[in-house]
Amino acid sequence: MFSIESLFQYNWQIRDEWFEILEPIAEIELFRERNAGIGSIMKTLFHIIDVEYSWIRAIKNEPDVTFDCEEYKDIKSMRTLSDKLRIEIKELLTNWSMDMEYEMVTPGWDDDFYFKGEILRHIIVHEIHHIGQLSIWSKEIGIPVISTSFIGKKLLQRN
Amino acid sequence: MFSIESLFQYNWQIRDEWFEILEPIAEIELFRERNAGIGSIMKTLFHIIDVEYSWIRAIKNEPDVTFDCEEYKDIKSMRTLSDKLRIEIKELLTNWSMDMEYEMVTPGWDDDFYFKGEILRHIIVHEIHHIGQLSIWSKEIGIPVISTSFIGKKLLQRN
Repeated sequence: MFSIESLFQYNWQIRDEWFEILEPIAEIELFRERNAGIGSIMKTLFHIIDVEYSWIRAIKNEPDVTFDCEEYKDIKSMRTLSDKLRIEIKELLTNWSMDMEYEMVTPGWDDDFYFKGEILRHIIVHEIHHIGQLSIWSKEIGIPVISTSFIGKKLLQRN
Repeated sequence: MFSIESLFQYNWQIRDEWFEILEPIAEIELFRERNAGIGSIMKTLFHIIDVEYSWIRAIKNEPDVTFDCEEYKDIKSMRTLSDKLRIEIKELLTNWSMDMEYEMVTPGWDDDFYFKGEILRHIIVHEIHHIGQLSIWSKEIGIPVISTSFIGKKLLQRN
């Protein structure tokens, strides 16, 4: 497995565990404004999915797709969106090669140019950061801590 | 810059910004038990530094060094420790090569074997996760949010 892909697998595995553990949680907790980070658990999950996909589209030089967070009012629909977009992202990562790292693109919402490799790393750290925020909130709603250890997940395999 | 190194640079840059912003903060806030994550801001910072170094020692097949958190009672001493250990870590990363990714080591505190590349990724995600937790607490103590964007930090440069 290409080394950068293992970090996407890491994020996705943990994201899916969050979906699972949050599915039975009351709506009021999921939408509660927590006055830090993105504001609520649901907003955070939507933000992670939305930002990841926007940057992937930028890497592909394709126009951004805007999602309306009002359409994703429960964990199930959020997960369906996440699963759907993942197909396209996986395809990009499968065809990733080292020489793409320094290719430059400019996203539709910005005038700057970025290395594609820089964008991939941005997507990775972005999700880990927000999952760290969720881990603090999980204590408030009394759900178990989801392991964020990279080690032990068997994510790095020889090609 | 080797791609994995850019993620260490990312973490270190943000860690140093945290040291800077936390230096004038009252001790009572830094040590306050926050009932989530590692417990307090100081414990979190110590944990990040301690875990990073322990795994780096494991990669080097050298014995772990135990630090006593009681000796690091302010941001200044914490930063001095962080700076000191970074020299050795930088040296390892400078000499990193792709063929080291799948070399196996076993840390002194564990019976399992791990790929060196797996350990490097573990260290990276570990810090990002805990910094995400700090970002929630920063709101409680009223300090500005430190940007955790990878993009815009010019971390990825052609070799």
